[in-house]
Amino acid sequence: MSQLDREEPSHFGAGPAQMPTNVLKQAALDLLNYQNMGLGIGEISHRSKEAVALINETKENLIKLLEIPGTHDVFFLQGGGTTGFSSIATNLNQAYIARHGKVGKAGYLVTGSWSQKAYEEAKRLRIQSEVIFDARNFSQDGKFGIIPNEKEWSNKIESLKDDLSYVYLCENETVHGIEWGPELPKCLSDVEVVADLSSDILSRKIDVSRYGVIMAGAQKNIGLAGLTLYIIKKSLLSDIEKFNKEFAGKFEDNVHVPVTPIAFEFPTAVKNNSSYNTIPIFTLHVMNLVFRNLIAKGGIEQQQIENEEKAELLYRTLDSFPEFYNIPVDKSCRSKMNVVFTIKKDGLDDLFIEGAKKLKLTGLKGHRSVGGFRASIYNALSLEAVTKLADFVEDFAKKNM
Amino acid sequence: MSQLDREEPSHFGAGPAQMPTNVLKQAALDLLNYQNMGLGIGEISHRSKEAVALINETKENLIKLLEIPGTHDVFFLQGGGTTGFSSIATNLNQAYIARHGKVGKAGYLVTGSWSQKAYEEAKRLRIQSEVIFDARNFSQDGKFGIIPNEKEWSNKIESLKDDLSYVYLCENETVHGIEWGPELPKCLSDVEVVADLSSDILSRKIDVSRYGVIMAGAQKNIGLAGLTLYIIKKSLLSDIEKFNKEFAGKFEDNVHVPVTPIAFEFPTAVKNNSSYNTIPIFTLHVMNLVFRNLIAKGGIEQQQIENEEKAELLYRTLDSFPEFYNIPVDKSCRSKMNVVFTIKKDGLDDLFIEGAKKLKLTGLKGHRSVGGFRASIYNALSLEAVTKLADFVEDFAKKNM
Repeated sequence: MSQLDREEPSHFGAGPAQMPTNVLKQAALDLLNYQNMGLGIGEISHRSKEAVALINETKENLIKLLEIPGTHDVFFLQGGGTTGFSSIATNLNQAYIARHGKVGKAGYLVTGSWSQKAYEEAKRLRIQSEVIFDARNFSQDGKFGIIPNEKEWSNKIESLKDDLSYVYLCENETVHGIEWGPELPKCLSDVEVVADLSSDILSRKIDVSRYGVIMAGAQKNIGLAGLTLYIIKKSLLSDIEKFNKEFAGKFEDNVHVPVTPIAFEFPTAVKNNSSYNTIPIFTLHVMNLVFRNLIAKGGIEQQQIENEEKAELLYRTLDSFPEFYNIPVDKSCRSKMNVVFTIKKDGLDDLFIEGAKKLKLTGLKGHRSVGGFRASIYNALSLEAVTKLADFVEDFAKKNM
Repeated sequence: MSQLDREEPSHFGAGPAQMPTNVLKQAALDLLNYQNMGLGIGEISHRSKEAVALINETKENLIKLLEIPGTHDVFFLQGGGTTGFSSIATNLNQAYIARHGKVGKAGYLVTGSWSQKAYEEAKRLRIQSEVIFDARNFSQDGKFGIIPNEKEWSNKIESLKDDLSYVYLCENETVHGIEWGPELPKCLSDVEVVADLSSDILSRKIDVSRYGVIMAGAQKNIGLAGLTLYIIKKSLLSDIEKFNKEFAGKFEDNVHVPVTPIAFEFPTAVKNNSSYNTIPIFTLHVMNLVFRNLIAKGGIEQQQIENEEKAELLYRTLDSFPEFYNIPVDKSCRSKMNVVFTIKKDGLDDLFIEGAKKLKLTGLKGHRSVGGFRASIYNALSLEAVTKLADFVEDFAKKNM
């Protein structure tokens, strides 16, 4: 294994993120010769029996890992979360029209820059949409850093309920280090919840039955950039198909109903087993290797225990130097994936990054829009790597206080 | 190199297609450790200096290979050719409006199933569009197999000219094995030509200055599925930006102007150096390795000589058994990338496929919609592999006539 071996990295970048070394080794071998075919996994037809088997296995592994109920379907698309912003808006707009015979309104829970971008895209596409709350209005400094208690906004959901085509949230905001709890707010029980889980999928147990749509880009917890997974309630698929049959055209004259590009039409993707057009088969294979790896490790249950331990250790270390480090996120919604912090004293930031680099702890710079530091501790980051970082965080504070 | 070595395949699949073994070896190593960073190329931020350098080098290599003039820009998007069908239609619709103050009409030259699909998608998105010609109307059997001489349709271009937002063509139809000549028809001199080069890009010299937009999915001649390259005339980018500034909204009341999803808005992609959202960085790296490999081999000029030799050999062999093999494509437009043929006698198809497989010649089945055989001889297929196939084609005919 010498050529493909490497020292285990400790890379805390927010994504594309570090991946399990054993997954990458297998992927590297399969790039040249998959299942002894004499051909690499990236060189075979997406309609070959090997590719179809791979698509099916990947779906089944995801269903197993997340205990996805029979009420929901799984599919994969290109385009990342940003494309998801667009296609969720146009697909679900149509689903609502088919069910209610009128245009609905999309509600956005804005907790950071990703949910904000999703809202902006819906508006840009001329989907009727509304901000249910902007979390900046609930923080002391007017910045993202808190998720308001549902008491503060459940009345708005209540009053809009019959018109809501869906309510959108981003479960983990990578830029600001803010994460929703694993249980959805009660006031969202009767609406279609659409959630972006790009940066915390497979990090903890969730109740899939409560979601209308889950969307997750691969490049944080589940592999290489270039593939996005979707989990969708089957009833929503039927609604969109009903729209295509009964409503498309009818609304054209007086109300603008945007058409989804065919490659991103959800029922088309499902009916064609994610192969309406060529699925990036190598990227899919890597995703499946990550799923297999996680199942072998003990599934989400085991991963969640590790993730909680990692986050607890890092936050505890930062909290133990309250004069030195600042965490600009309310304790109630601190992300277990992206630990965002700053150093209170001026002029130490570069020293921190350099000191970390000497210990081979990399990728710690905060997002350009926020500054400071961000330690992304996705599934692939071991407790060992996080312990090294926590030790450095402690040492650095002691030396520079 | 033992772990990553393989016997050179002879896989004639239409795509995702065989790739150069040395490219895959390098990609496999870089998946674990890129430029001695201790991290793989798929694990670094798309905004890191290494990623930005890679994006720039890939662009520069393409510019070098295709001698792209300064009037044109290069960018990369996810979503394959199918997504290109949608985003070309919506972007160029807006460009025309900005320049002419009215809605234009898209013209489609339908020579096979891919150009047909592109037309259908434009219509589906409610872009005003028209078939300039359907090649099936010019063939004896009503099937695709010929490209009508421009004399047959140039008058239609002439009469529509002022209204044409663009004229779309697919330079090589993989399903039917039909390819346009390397020089565009003269009657297209004064219109914006949009061309899908997914399956013959980099196979021969072209004059980029004659195109408004070139679009090419990677999975035939340039790498793994999951990335599509675009070459666009800068004036078209300014037109779309002008639309956004001056026209968006103005047309809403009386004319439907579809909005492009943000991830596929051409000026946004160019302004953000193909990183408005996360670019599939590993897939991009593989593309760049293919470009480097082609440059090292002597560039397109050398590749074109090889490709012509390969195609000439295979067609000559098939033609030398006119009683046995049939090529359902007019000699004037036989594809140098996908050689489509059938066996005239019934009941021999399975025997042909099995015999080929014994010689490790794979991927020869024709497209499910057409049947028969298809030998895709993209850049990565060596003359040696094609010679082996030609020998088998000859032997098989002699044995089974």
